[in-house]
Amino acid sequence: MADKPSVLRETDDEARKLARIILRSARSAAIAVIEPGSDGFPFVSRVLLGIDTDGTPVILVSALSAHTQALSADQRCSLLTGEIGKGDPLAHARLTVQCEAGKVDRDSAAHTRIRERFIRRHPKAQLYVDFPDFAFFRLTPLKASMNGGFGRAYVLTGEDLMIRLRRSRILPQWSSAPSIT
Amino acid sequence: MADKPSVLRETDDEARKLARIILRSARSAAIAVIEPGSDGFPFVSRVLLGIDTDGTPVILVSALSAHTQALSADQRCSLLTGEIGKGDPLAHARLTVQCEAGKVDRDSAAHTRIRERFIRRHPKAQLYVDFPDFAFFRLTPLKASMNGGFGRAYVLTGEDLMIRLRRSRILPQWSSAPSIT
Repeated sequence: MADKPSVLRETDDEARKLARIILRSARSAAIAVIEPGSDGFPFVSRVLLGIDTDGTPVILVSALSAHTQALSADQRCSLLTGEIGKGDPLAHARLTVQCEAGKVDRDSAAHTRIRERFIRRHPKAQLYVDFPDFAFFRLTPLKASMNGGFGRAYVLTGEDLMIRLRRSRILPQWSSAPSIT
Repeated sequence: MADKPSVLRETDDEARKLARIILRSARSAAIAVIEPGSDGFPFVSRVLLGIDTDGTPVILVSALSAHTQALSADQRCSLLTGEIGKGDPLAHARLTVQCEAGKVDRDSAAHTRIRERFIRRHPKAQLYVDFPDFAFFRLTPLKASMNGGFGRAYVLTGEDLMIRLRRSRILPQWSSAPSIT
């Protein structure tokens, strides 16, 4: 009955935490996009996954690949993460995140940060990360659904997947005063 | 460069064979569908996979699940198969098959055959296969693309994935004469 989300559970902090763990521990994901020029046919392929500092998933893709051409035409996409362990594949938790993709400008500070984080996670990406046809996309989560296995289904917001920094931990209290610059 | 299908290889019998092996050995798949009522937003989730006698992929899904509701509204879908082994996830071969889904009538001979084959492959499915909200869908392949790892990209037809029975092996020669029935 793993496929049967008949009982939609209330989304509590434990569910949000599990969802964030599934997303951030994933080395790769299945990405669903709309095939360009197909009148809306879905297309699914595999991508390497990185995570930006705020928790946003990022991918590094070639302009020659089908999913990149799709995202350039329609930025809507969906990521599936969650490792398949032993036994029944549906007994293992998995997460679907529906996202809006945005290309990362190669000359931006974001690119430097994302590139460094991505290579740290996927060292082999260093071989092609700077090729002219490769680019990073940030996939901003809009909403998500998680199946925790055996019918434990949850609906989540995009915000549930983000890293929420406590203001007090990163800025001294007086920094809430207007900045001079 | 695993993501870089810059060199599309010629689809030979070896590639077709690898594609059929990837599809038929898969216990589960990522399935991309169009989310109903979303104006075409892609949605990806995980399904158990079976194979009909002619090689057509089949899934067993609950009417309560998002992917089933999607397929009932728009039969176009895409399957991703190919196990992720050790090391670089993109070094391992994977296959995208774009399909048209058709619900299997519960009272048909096809249902009996598919049900038996599916349970043989996924014994735990016996627990819910006969629940009234569960149904089999045959996913007829229309076209496919395979990434054999490290840029070895191939385009395949739906026919390439089918089991081609040699007429001579299943029917005696005289059976090509018109049948009496």
